[in-house]
Formats: sequence, C-alpha cells, structure tokens
Amino acid sequence: MPSSEILGLVAGLFTTFAIIPQIMRVYKLKSAREISVIYNTTMLLGILLWLVYGIVLGLVPIIIWNIIGALLNVLLLLAKFKYGR
Amino acid sequence: MPSSEILGLVAGLFTTFAIIPQIMRVYKLKSAREISVIYNTTMLLGILLWLVYGIVLGLVPIIIWNIIGALLNVLLLLAKFKYGR
Repeated sequence: MPSSEILGLVAGLFTTFAIIPQIMRVYKLKSAREISVIYNTTMLLGILLWLVYGIVLGLVPIIIWNIIGALLNVLLLLAKFKYGR
Repeated sequence: MPSSEILGLVAGLFTTFAIIPQIMRVYKLKSAREISVIYNTTMLLGILLWLVYGIVLGLVPIIIWNIIGALLNVLLLLAKFKYGR
C-alpha cells in the first residue's frame, strides 16, 4: 500500500468518525435545536459527490470514508428530525 | 482542467461550505451547547491530514477545500468556546 494511501486512510478516520461524538451528544441531550438542517443536507450531498470523485479516480480512502460518512450523516439528520425544534 | 478536478471542486464546495449555515446558526442562537468539542477538534485534525494528503498527491481540489475547511472549523470551535455550556 502506498504511503499516501495510508495517510488518506488515517485522515479519513479522523474526518469521518469525528461526527460520532456529535451524533452521540445530540442523542444524549435529546436536543438538536442548534444543528442546522442546511448543514446536514448539504454535507450529505457533498459526501456523495466526493464518493463519485473517488470512484472516478480510483482513490480507495476517499471511496471508503465517504460511504461511511454518508451513513453517519444520515444518523445526524434523523436526530435533527427527531429532536430538532 | 480534467473533469475529475471539476467534480472535486464541486464536491468540496458542498462539504466545505456546508458548515457555514451551522456556524451562522450557533452564532445566531448564541448557544453551542449541543456542539461536541470532540467532533470539532477531531474534524480539524482530520482536515489538516487531508491537506497533507492533497499536497503529497498534488490534488488541487483537496488542497483548496481543506485550507478553507480548516479556517471554517476554527470559527465553529471559537463559537463553542464562546457559547458552549
């Protein structure tokens, strides 16, 4: 595995899983008033575009992290619908 | 400009600027209680790693968006320090 690929895997580990404590916090507080639904939907759309970019260029880290990232962002969006006021 | 580069620029437009309505919402509500500081700092660290990845592979969209993304995430972190309880 080229070292750039390892770097991309580590970078994606951070930017993809960063959202997990945010999701946990919102579900724990049972409040998503401060979460912007425009943020969430725009981010989801962008992640799907990065996924296409990764597929086109065959960049493995970008493909993997954006699939996981899309799923996690859906969880935050569900929290917004459930707890957003 | 190769079409993959245009795709990366559009994808980054979404994922980078998505955070702007989130920042605006927190500053408008003067409340960042729901924002996870672990989310924010982990995301910032990951963005800086993606920046290095982009520099190593010479991927222009990744370089540009991660510089802007880092700056925007600092704004959200400042909001957390100012309004987080």
